[in-house]
Amino acid sequence: MPELSGVHPAWLPPEAFRAIGSRRTLVLGDDVLADTVRAEVAHACARYGGTLHDDRDGAYDLVLALDSEAGVGPEGFVLSRHDGATTVVAGGPAGLLYGLFEVVRRGETAFGADLPAEAHRPALRRRMLDHWDNIDVHPVMGQVERGYAGGSIFWREGGPRDLTRVRAYGRLLAACGINAVAVNNVNVHATEARLLTDRLGEVAAIADELRPYGIRVHLSVNFASPVALGGLATADPLDDGVRAWWARTTERVYATIPDFGGYVVKADSEGQPGPFAYGRDHADGANMLADALAPFGGVVHWRAFVYDHRQDWRDRSTDRARAAYDHFAPLDGRFRDNAIVQVKNGPIDFQVREPVSPVIAAMPDTRLAVELQVTQEYTGQQKHVCYLAPMWREVLGFRPWGPDGRTVADVATELVAVSNVGDDPYWTGHPLAQANLYAFGRLAWAPGLDPADLLDEWIGLTFPVAGDPGRLRRILHEIMDGSWRTYERYTAPLGVGFMVRPGHHYGPDVDGYEYTPWGTYHFADRDGVGVDRTRATGTGFTGQYPKPWSDVYESPAKCPDELLLFFHHVPYGHVLHDGTTVIQHIYDTHFAGAEQAAAMRDRWEKAAGDVPPELHARVRELLDEQVRSAREWRDQINTYFFRKSGAADAHGRRIY
Amino acid sequence: MPELSGVHPAWLPPEAFRAIGSRRTLVLGDDVLADTVRAEVAHACARYGGTLHDDRDGAYDLVLALDSEAGVGPEGFVLSRHDGATTVVAGGPAGLLYGLFEVVRRGETAFGADLPAEAHRPALRRRMLDHWDNIDVHPVMGQVERGYAGGSIFWREGGPRDLTRVRAYGRLLAACGINAVAVNNVNVHATEARLLTDRLGEVAAIADELRPYGIRVHLSVNFASPVALGGLATADPLDDGVRAWWARTTERVYATIPDFGGYVVKADSEGQPGPFAYGRDHADGANMLADALAPFGGVVHWRAFVYDHRQDWRDRSTDRARAAYDHFAPLDGRFRDNAIVQVKNGPIDFQVREPVSPVIAAMPDTRLAVELQVTQEYTGQQKHVCYLAPMWREVLGFRPWGPDGRTVADVATELVAVSNVGDDPYWTGHPLAQANLYAFGRLAWAPGLDPADLLDEWIGLTFPVAGDPGRLRRILHEIMDGSWRTYERYTAPLGVGFMVRPGHHYGPDVDGYEYTPWGTYHFADRDGVGVDRTRATGTGFTGQYPKPWSDVYESPAKCPDELLLFFHHVPYGHVLHDGTTVIQHIYDTHFAGAEQAAAMRDRWEKAAGDVPPELHARVRELLDEQVRSAREWRDQINTYFFRKSGAADAHGRRIY
Repeated sequence: MPELSGVHPAWLPPEAFRAIGSRRTLVLGDDVLADTVRAEVAHACARYGGTLHDDRDGAYDLVLALDSEAGVGPEGFVLSRHDGATTVVAGGPAGLLYGLFEVVRRGETAFGADLPAEAHRPALRRRMLDHWDNIDVHPVMGQVERGYAGGSIFWREGGPRDLTRVRAYGRLLAACGINAVAVNNVNVHATEARLLTDRLGEVAAIADELRPYGIRVHLSVNFASPVALGGLATADPLDDGVRAWWARTTERVYATIPDFGGYVVKADSEGQPGPFAYGRDHADGANMLADALAPFGGVVHWRAFVYDHRQDWRDRSTDRARAAYDHFAPLDGRFRDNAIVQVKNGPIDFQVREPVSPVIAAMPDTRLAVELQVTQEYTGQQKHVCYLAPMWREVLGFRPWGPDGRTVADVATELVAVSNVGDDPYWTGHPLAQANLYAFGRLAWAPGLDPADLLDEWIGLTFPVAGDPGRLRRILHEIMDGSWRTYERYTAPLGVGFMVRPGHHYGPDVDGYEYTPWGTYHFADRDGVGVDRTRATGTGFTGQYPKPWSDVYESPAKCPDELLLFFHHVPYGHVLHDGTTVIQHIYDTHFAGAEQAAAMRDRWEKAAGDVPPELHARVRELLDEQVRSAREWRDQINTYFFRKSGAADAHGRRIY
Repeated sequence: MPELSGVHPAWLPPEAFRAIGSRRTLVLGDDVLADTVRAEVAHACARYGGTLHDDRDGAYDLVLALDSEAGVGPEGFVLSRHDGATTVVAGGPAGLLYGLFEVVRRGETAFGADLPAEAHRPALRRRMLDHWDNIDVHPVMGQVERGYAGGSIFWREGGPRDLTRVRAYGRLLAACGINAVAVNNVNVHATEARLLTDRLGEVAAIADELRPYGIRVHLSVNFASPVALGGLATADPLDDGVRAWWARTTERVYATIPDFGGYVVKADSEGQPGPFAYGRDHADGANMLADALAPFGGVVHWRAFVYDHRQDWRDRSTDRARAAYDHFAPLDGRFRDNAIVQVKNGPIDFQVREPVSPVIAAMPDTRLAVELQVTQEYTGQQKHVCYLAPMWREVLGFRPWGPDGRTVADVATELVAVSNVGDDPYWTGHPLAQANLYAFGRLAWAPGLDPADLLDEWIGLTFPVAGDPGRLRRILHEIMDGSWRTYERYTAPLGVGFMVRPGHHYGPDVDGYEYTPWGTYHFADRDGVGVDRTRATGTGFTGQYPKPWSDVYESPAKCPDELLLFFHHVPYGHVLHDGTTVIQHIYDTHFAGAEQAAAMRDRWEKAAGDVPPELHARVRELLDEQVRSAREWRDQINTYFFRKSGAADAHGRRIY
């Protein structure tokens, strides 16, 4: 097992393997993944005195074996316990690995009472992390775009790193169910474009480290590569020379990395090149790459994050929220089977509160990946505690066709997230942000899991407590369970979004994007606030949803309060479902949110004896910043809306 | 004469020397500056067929001679013409040079009718440019902080440049009367700090190029140099070791550059180190450096731009406008004779409209330099035409003690400006921005000059027109004379200041600085706008002025309209002296300003045949940007205040 000095073990400290390590274990299988399982068990036994066997005859506490007839697919497994033996029967080598980590999660309880056979298989076949890592270091963005955990774990500036840590990373990801990683930024700059060709060896080296943990490597590519790298005059997806270039190039990729996953593409978006330049559409572009990948079983992830980022703020008819649907819904049915349209969970851009993207319900004949943002670009940048699993759970459980219809998790074939990992000693900047990465993988495996239960799992694995385990568990739940809603309270209200400092996106600036070309406006004036996206009087965005939501969102009376300002421009005196006015709600939530941030800090003090002192100190420092920032949000938002509305706070609190 | 290929000759094209070059000229004097004069004349004669002589006996069209008894000081000269001879009698070698350039300015008229003796001498003894150049290139700021004309003319990235261009620069500066240049940024970073010690040779090389044009070189130094460069434990100005270090270091500077001008210091300001760290004040700091410089005749320029840049926006009692006076006025009388307190023209920071800094009237026993900003940080960044001489004329002619008192130009002993020059082919980015540099030098020599006359001088020198000279002259006056007021119209209204995008300061962002620590607020709410700086109800800043201004500014009725929002928070319905309300004034000026910018562009089209085509095209491109930007300002400002006030435009124009 890779053990890294100076790097926190996250949810796989040695103690997590105590229950397995002290037992007699049989592992059967001769695949690289079975070898990994054996190595894990052997390592645990070396520490805790158990034994590893490969002989079918004998009595074992734990048996891990393959059976392709198990009926749970290549990644699934059946877990059972009777007659004093715990058994994992896996449908394929990956299932063996996931079964092992299921036993690790259960710890001693896996070796307790009898357990009738439980079938486990992932709900989503691809559970993927997109790294926005660059090779070069950008003077403002740093090396990882929207990265808040230091530099890349794949590259030092300019070249490949020692990859020991990448092996450990793969192990952590496998333990929460992730099976694919795109290694580089979707904004593919000149240096990184070459990972497809003369720097492909760097990708292969990463793939070698991740393969033992069942993780396939994907690559973000620049759509203009045939021009930039191939010296062709065009990147037109219907041009034969271009198609041949991609075919040849892809063939070379697979010759080097036989289990390569495929390409990720951000095209015709925020300045990236794409098929529009040649009068082609997104299906033309995606299918061209899909065709190049098909012979090798690869896929292309084609992002639906396409909008006009040079909008005129004066133009009220253009609505960024509409853009992905307007571009992609008409193309439904035209994408190849191995062309996956990757849709952000909301129509704008990873805000703390957005409706679910209408694209998800609009492309029944297209394979869809739903993209979440684990990196906390708009949710506190890993300086704030903001446990995001409750938000993701809501997204995955949302039923676009109403209470009797399917959920987002049913519709999506894949779940993808932007990674929050860097070369930080705690992996994720904020130590507690590890929980987001863990929970993302687990939800991608089983979208119905309860976020509080997932937090429980993560706590149990991550913090082998010497003292009272109940106390730390309680404190962490108190701090983290509601932290997303707390963050929502002290930032942009009622789904209106943004109000962040332009560029870096940290901290408040209510008008920061109001008069910019980015399409993210709130239209606050002295009378009211919010974006009219109705069909009746606004941009018509509500019409992109199927019933009942197209009607629910259309009506200010029926629209859920938390999305009111996303869909409607209302007077400050508009009364919410709880009887509060919008302006009073703004004041109330902002005072409450800032108070709750302060309460988090107080609670954390009580955990001082239960976690390593360095970790405690680091979280305390970050909580200090969160409290400061929450107060800043509170005061700027309240002052801004007080100056606009003139409405006094019903409770006479201090507004500046 | 340095003639540079690919670099515009600015106000010294060869044609400017036509009148001299065709005549018989006698130059007497044996100084390096007399040699320069001779070289200039010889060069002109080579082109236009005249002759240069050094023999007193003979008949000459032009005589340039020294007479230390002339009574006009070392830089002055007496110009006269009779009996067909034009004579310059200079009080010293520099006067010879300035006399030559006076004859150049007059051209043929210097050789026309008789002229009774005219004494010329500079009103201000030091006329200085501060370069904010760095050796290294900052990823965001570039090489020149607030530079809008490319990189430094002194350094390529990391090291010294070929300095041929610096010689040409010195020549241009001498021709408008400038006699001192500080070569590096007042924010002295690590690399540039070493210009004082092991990189001093780079400063000496620049001094060698500027010396023939009567320009002394000054250096911005880091107050913490004894620690950073000298390895001392302290930079305490009262510490003997520190004083000895500065004495030794300064001695070495003068051993290398005997006519070195002195140091420029930004201390305890915006994060720069200073005497506060040691419990000392600005006089202690400045005097320590003055003592080190005194034996060699050097001076220290100590900037009064000191304020709390980490202010809490919630704190209404702190007023950045007060800061310089609060820090410096109590120290009056404590500065050495060679310690010059350098005060920005306004109390905030080079806004398009500010009152004159009250510091200027508050330190009768201190030598003061008034600092202007030729680089257009807040006035269009050399993308907009904004001829600043009318503003500077107002500042220099302002009478702090009322109509019968002295002017700012009377009180100041020096005039300093932040340079607008870079390695751009036109020197100043915008070709028409050359006029600002020219006018600054001329106003520092003679603060009473009329800005329109100065523009005339500049046009006559810069554009030797083939066609109708009157037409180009008229067009440029139409575009430039009122361009400062046009810029004022379409940007922040009525002296309120800022409302620019944070960081780069280009373009509008009304609330951009409203909730930041920088102390630049407008306090606009639904009822009114402006900063209450009165003694009666505000920050008390008005009390820093002597009468009558302390009373004029205190009263909303008496306060000049253009400064109303600088001094008062007033309702949108407040009626200005012309009978317009504040809100209607905002609308009217912004519609008018944007229209006037468009009219500038139209006028420029008519000059197409009168200036070189590349210059015409460059200005046209920049005017396109100015028109676009002015429209953006118009719409953002109008929309912002319409949303806040709800007041309809009296003329029903489009507000978004």
